[in-house]
Formats: sequence, structure tokens, C-alpha cells
Amino acid sequence: MISPLLTDLYQLTMAYGYWKLNLHDREAVFHQIFRKNPFGGNYAVCAGLGTVIEFLQNWHFSEDDIAYLGHLKAPDGTKLFPHEFLMYLKNLRFTCHVDAIPEGTVVFPHEPLLRITGPLLQGQLIESTLLNIINFQTLIATKASRVCRAAQGDTVLEFGMRRSQGLDGALSASRAAYIGGCAATSNVLAGKRFDIPVRGTHAHSWVTAFPDEMQAFSAYADVMPNNCVLLVDTFDTVLGVKHAIEVGKKLRANGAKLRGIRLDSGDMTALSIKARELLDAAGFQETQIIASNSLDEYVIDKMKKDGAKVTVWGVGTNLMTAYDHPALDGVYKLSALRDEKGAWQYKLKISEQPIKISNPGIHQVRRFFVDGVAEIDVMYDTQLGISEAPEATLFDTSGTHKKIADYDAFVDLLVPVFDRGQCVYPDETIHAIQKRAKQETDLFVNAHQQKHYPVGLEQQLFSKKQTLIAEVIQANELF
Amino acid sequence: MISPLLTDLYQLTMAYGYWKLNLHDREAVFHQIFRKNPFGGNYAVCAGLGTVIEFLQNWHFSEDDIAYLGHLKAPDGTKLFPHEFLMYLKNLRFTCHVDAIPEGTVVFPHEPLLRITGPLLQGQLIESTLLNIINFQTLIATKASRVCRAAQGDTVLEFGMRRSQGLDGALSASRAAYIGGCAATSNVLAGKRFDIPVRGTHAHSWVTAFPDEMQAFSAYADVMPNNCVLLVDTFDTVLGVKHAIEVGKKLRANGAKLRGIRLDSGDMTALSIKARELLDAAGFQETQIIASNSLDEYVIDKMKKDGAKVTVWGVGTNLMTAYDHPALDGVYKLSALRDEKGAWQYKLKISEQPIKISNPGIHQVRRFFVDGVAEIDVMYDTQLGISEAPEATLFDTSGTHKKIADYDAFVDLLVPVFDRGQCVYPDETIHAIQKRAKQETDLFVNAHQQKHYPVGLEQQLFSKKQTLIAEVIQANELF
Repeated sequence: MISPLLTDLYQLTMAYGYWKLNLHDREAVFHQIFRKNPFGGNYAVCAGLGTVIEFLQNWHFSEDDIAYLGHLKAPDGTKLFPHEFLMYLKNLRFTCHVDAIPEGTVVFPHEPLLRITGPLLQGQLIESTLLNIINFQTLIATKASRVCRAAQGDTVLEFGMRRSQGLDGALSASRAAYIGGCAATSNVLAGKRFDIPVRGTHAHSWVTAFPDEMQAFSAYADVMPNNCVLLVDTFDTVLGVKHAIEVGKKLRANGAKLRGIRLDSGDMTALSIKARELLDAAGFQETQIIASNSLDEYVIDKMKKDGAKVTVWGVGTNLMTAYDHPALDGVYKLSALRDEKGAWQYKLKISEQPIKISNPGIHQVRRFFVDGVAEIDVMYDTQLGISEAPEATLFDTSGTHKKIADYDAFVDLLVPVFDRGQCVYPDETIHAIQKRAKQETDLFVNAHQQKHYPVGLEQQLFSKKQTLIAEVIQANELF
Repeated sequence: MISPLLTDLYQLTMAYGYWKLNLHDREAVFHQIFRKNPFGGNYAVCAGLGTVIEFLQNWHFSEDDIAYLGHLKAPDGTKLFPHEFLMYLKNLRFTCHVDAIPEGTVVFPHEPLLRITGPLLQGQLIESTLLNIINFQTLIATKASRVCRAAQGDTVLEFGMRRSQGLDGALSASRAAYIGGCAATSNVLAGKRFDIPVRGTHAHSWVTAFPDEMQAFSAYADVMPNNCVLLVDTFDTVLGVKHAIEVGKKLRANGAKLRGIRLDSGDMTALSIKARELLDAAGFQETQIIASNSLDEYVIDKMKKDGAKVTVWGVGTNLMTAYDHPALDGVYKLSALRDEKGAWQYKLKISEQPIKISNPGIHQVRRFFVDGVAEIDVMYDTQLGISEAPEATLFDTSGTHKKIADYDAFVDLLVPVFDRGQCVYPDETIHAIQKRAKQETDLFVNAHQQKHYPVGLEQQLFSKKQTLIAEVIQANELF
């Protein structure tokens, strides 16, 4: 269970403010978006909703949490929160509506991955946790998708826990990496908790624990004849391959087999070619060659182009920490709030950087298809609606205007997840999510390659936003 | 409690192998080191031992863990682990000796941060978790130390949970960031769990929830007169500062005060100078100027040089994900194992890259001081010993040889933490650890600036290593 205290303190000070001013139950709408595709790519794979559901289903403050908050002091030494507010928190239960884009869907900047509708105070309190979960898992699922694409259908194993960012940095990253396409993880607890296949054989320490490599390999084959993959680079890789072949012959003689060898250092392209030759010459055509050691999509791509004979890729640190882009820039913005009369007031945050001006309203994303391939996404406001042949202004510097008429299907991406605090989302296995991610990215990448995928604001919403920007500027500068 | 399943599967397959071959209780020595200072710097601040202690104190396999392991299958569909081995694991308790360098100590590549002495199987099973904990917390404590040094004594607040790598990526990073010198965190659960001060006021959503900024600020000052820091950039920063000053005057009239304003976008150096002028002119000399938005040591250093009038720095993503170097390259190597007669056999792993050849033996690190300043560290073998005026070969490409005679004090860095599985390490508060880190880094940085700090292998250990390399090459190529 994730504690509701896993949030930023300012969420609680704002919550107290809203409560004190009797604004806490005003219905509000928040959207969570990201602004830029990670890794210089042209798509992201959303992930984390399963963890969000688990968090929100159990969201309440324990006695212990309340006691801790009761001890917090303001800088002048007075109590930060009065008793009445703490009693309010103690009895609080989650009552929001949550709509979300299903995990494994291909998504783009500006699109709401989550839409929270409900009491202002609640939407505020859950912000930081939702950002943390979705930002990280989306980042890693996207990285995994890129790595798996580079591997062109070869098996990719996730081996990253030892250098992941913290214990859950390892756990939730294993979950996301599986969604993004990895076949298995080395992390046993992730396997247990998320029903992900686990894989692994032995390390250098196994080899160094024995007087020499041959004795180490023989011993391993004796105790693990049904899962025998030998790490061949403890002393010298080519010699290691030869030792592995000797052991493979004994395994074969006993009706077992040498499943694989693993390369973990050196010029792995050249070594894999040499290892394949040696293995094939000895009749071990089925023995897999596994490579690990600072792999990522760029290295795999290069090795493939250079003719590497690797069949399984073990990817660790660069995948699990998203090394070349270690954070997704997700944000969570208030975009509508009912006034005292119950009418929706649309909200936005202004910025000198246009990309940082938030979108007002209550959003849905409609994805239009031609021949089964997504061609354009249009964000529209659920109050303003969308026509059958909508017009949209694209989110790019050009501000291109588009009319969408020639399509043969569409789907609204946000689906209900919580209804007044109750989960209404169907159970889905992580395997189904992985399958969705694979289907979606295959279709998307084949159609769009490295092209910028068009996402636009529906025209009425676009106009509403312009009007509101002018109003906000006026309201604030008038003072 | 951290599950012992939070490990790589190969640790369990190796453990099974050792058990099956009756090697599981052979006494072994493992060391955990890192190979390169992160961030292109010349030191690291070690952290994570407190979490390691908590992990090892509670280390045992639950019924549930055993049941999960019992279900795991090898690729051929047979059970991966037999029942007898699982019963062995179920009854297993931690009985190793652990020696470690105290958290907050300045450390360098090749030095053992942890030394594990005990049954081979146990030392193997805990490897991945120890690597995860120490790699990440050392990385973040080091980053925080760098950020705090750039801030030159100004307060640094850690605001990073929303883009941290997972929920624990946020929690344990908050812990490490505090050790590295941050004054407080925004993460409430980290505050509760680790006794770290928590800080925060309000976000843009507070401002947009009101009809205009002035109303939002007034409302915040009304409800939080004792903790009033106003975020001034929702619409226009300079205008925001003026609004904050108006509200500050009302607070002052009521005997309260405007504690600070926060800048979160734009040219923050210029804006801070302008804000300081406006605040000072209105008599708010004591009001702090807090800056946040993609800060790190490089940005803070540049802003300082450019004359920014910031007094508090809110640092988030770049600190908490160690954005420019998101993983420490820590490894954990078997370096000694008793043979069947009980004699120590020293172990190493060979590599074409000299930096990747591990160090054999049972290590201690002696730090030599002149006038209270650390001048050189020497790794020695506890069996071979170290003389009063030792000689050492430095870990650098030159292989420089040094004789250490002119020193006035030394200290052995590794201290006992567990004795036969029982924790013998004195309780220490996180505040004491933070203080140690500050003292150590102040002394170190003043003395060594950007210079490479010398770390060497004591001469007898160095010779032993050379002999062993030759023996290993011979033993393996002879086959």
C-alpha cells in the first residue's frame, strides 16, 4: 500500500487552505500530460495506471499519518495544521472520477494521460504521487519499446536492478519494461509481484569461486542441467566459449543441452561472430548467444548492423534508469473549477514559453484512423463537443490548421477508471497490456517512422483558449 | 521491510548450486566498490548503510516467498528449485560479518564501501539489494553535496518526488539528498520515515483556482499567515512580485510576515535582482527569494556568478534523478574463499580493461592525515597487514609508487556493522550523518579542489595481486 503522505507538503498546505476557505469540495478538473517525447523519439508508451489504481483504491490517511501531520510546525514554531483539519483528513475517502488512457497505448505530448474530476482538495492531494508513478513508468515503457524495436524481434531481458534508482526504481521499472516489450526480468520480487517471467543463471563470482573456469562450468552444468547458460568472459571470452563447448558436449551426452552462453565484455560483435562459429562447428546451432554490458537501443542497432550473432539481449542500467533521458517532464494542471453557482470556470496557467501555457477545459482525445492506422489525434472539450468533420490547430510551431474528414474510424482514448471513488476499470493482465503496447507501436512505427505525429486542439477549444488567455492577462494586469 | 526476493534470479540459481555442491557455508569475502567518481567530480559521499542495516536485520524468506520460488520453472518446464533447497532457504538466517564505511564519509573509486564476510551463499544472495541501495544513495548524496557546494551556504530544498524514478526512487533519494546537505524535502513520507524536515507552500494551481492572482495571494496569506511563501510566476513574475508585496503589507499590518516569494520560470537571475529591488524598496529586506525550475550545481553556480539575488534554492529532477549521470557503476566482487582445508584462497576476475580487474584479498582502507586533512588512502589486506611507513602503488594509469611516512594521524575506514548476523553498529541520527558529510566534504574540497585524490594498493597486496593474475592466466590457459 502506498501512503497518501507520499506527496509534496505544498499539496497539504494548499488542501488546508481550500478546506479553511470552504473550497475543498468544489468540483475541479485536473489533467496530467507530458510536454516532450523522451529520447528524441516521436512517441511514448503510457504505463503506470495499474499502480495508480492500486494507490487510489487504498488512499486514506492512517492514525499514524495524522499523528505525524499533527506534529509538523510552521517556521514560527506554531502547528502547521489545526486539529479540525486533521480530523477532516482522517475521515476523508477518495470520491473522484478518474479517466485514463489504457496502459500500453501509444501517446503524444499534450494529451491527458489522466483526467481527474472531483473535489478540488482531493485532486490536489493525489497530484504528486500520480506524477511520480506515470512519469516514471511511461518513461521506462517507452525506453523498453525502443530497445525491443532495435532488437528486431530478438528476446530482450531486463537485468537492471543493481543500478536502478532505489528499490522501487527497480520494481516499477521492471513492470514498465515488461509492458514496453521485455520478455522477462532478473528481479525476482518484480516477478512475484507483477507476474512477470524471471530469468537468470550465474555471475562471474560463480566462476571465481572455483579453482578454474572448466571446473566452474562443469559444476554449474551438473547442478543446473535444465537451465544451463554459461557466462564466458571471466578470464578470456574465446577460451570461455571453448570451455562451454566442452561442457555442452557432456550435457548432450547426458540428454541435456547447453542453452546458451553469455558475453559480458569486450568487442561483443566480433566475439559473438567468433562464438557462433565455434558453437556451430561443434554442433551447437541451437545454443543461444546472450549479450549484456551497457546495452541500449543505439548499441543494439549498431551491433545488428555490424553483423553481431546475438540472439538474446540482456539490458540493464541504460534501460532501467533511462540513462540518456532520465525523467519524463510530466505535469498536472487544474483546467476547470466550478464557481459558487456551480458553473464551470475554465482555468489556465500563462507562460512566456507557449509550450508551457496549459490547456483549459475538460478534455478527451479522439484518435482518427485510416485503414486501421492512427493518422491524427484531436483534443476536444467534452462541454464544447466535437463535430463529425472537426477542425483542429496542431500543437507545433507552425500552428497548422487541419480539417479531418477522410477517416474510417475513431476512438476516444480516455476511458473511465474510477466513478465517484469506485474502481470501474476491468482487470487486465500485464500480458494483455504488453500485447497492446506491441500492437500499437508496431502499427505506429510502420506508418510514421521518424515523422512528427500530428496532435491538435479542436477548433472551439482552441478559440476558447485564446479568449481565456486574453481574459487572464486583462484580469491580472488590471489590478 | 525489504523482501529478500528483491534480488536477481541468478543469485538464487547460484545459491542453489553452492548448496547442492555443499559449498554454501564456505567462508567467503565480498567487497562492494565503485569504479569512477560520478558527475566528472573528484569525490563521492557514501550513503545507504542505514537502509542496508534495516534490510539485513529483517532478512529472511517468508512462507509466501518460498511458495513463489517453488512455482518457478526452468525453460524445459521442470521445477527450478527442489523442495529440500527451499526448506533450507526458509530456515536460513543472516549470519555474516559486515564492515562498512560510515555514511557521509568522502570516498573514492576502488575503495570497499562494504565488506561482507561469511557463508558464500548468503554473501551471494544479498549482493543485488546491497548494490541497488548503496549505488543509488551514494549517487544522490554526492549530487546533493555538489549542489549544496554550488549554493555556497544558501539553503537548498529538495523538491524532486514528482519526477523521481519510482516511489522509492523518491523516498531513498530524499534520504540521500538530506545526507548530502539539503536542508529539507517536500516529500512528506520521507519526512515521516527518516526524520527529515519538510517544506512547501503552494503551486500554480492555487493561483489558478482563484479569479485572479491578487485574490489567490490574499487568500493564502489569510489561511497560512505563519508560512507565507508566494509563487509569483503563474501569469507574470514582476507583476506577481508586486502582488506579493501588497499582500506582504497586509501581513505586516497584522503582525505576521511575508516569508518569501518563489520564482519558477523565465530569466531567474534578472528576475531575482528585480524582485530584490522591489522587495527592499517596500521594506521587505527579510523576505527570502526562492528559485526553482531545472536547477543543478551548474545553473546555481552560473546564477551566483551572474549576481542572482536568490537565498533559497529548490532543486528537483536534476538532483533526484542525478540527471547528468543517473547511475553509479558500483560492483560487488568475490575476493577470498576458504578452501576445504580452511585456508584462504584469494580470488579475482580478469579483464582486458585493467580498471575491471578486481582486487583479491580481505581489504581495509587506511586514510592518512596531515594537519587534519586527508592526504592519501591506502587499501591493504588484513592478512598481509600494513607497516607504519607503508608503500603503495596508486590506482591511476601512471602506476606511481609512493612511500607514506610524513603523516600525523590515520584512520581505518571500514568499521564493524554486523557481527555473525547481529547488528553492532551504534544508532546514529540522519542529522549526525549529514553533519559528517558536511565536515568531510568541506575539509576535502578545500584541500583538494579539482585535484585527483590519491588512492593506492599497499605494496604487499599489490604484489599478491600481480602473482595471482599470473596464476589465474596460467591455470585457465593450461587447460
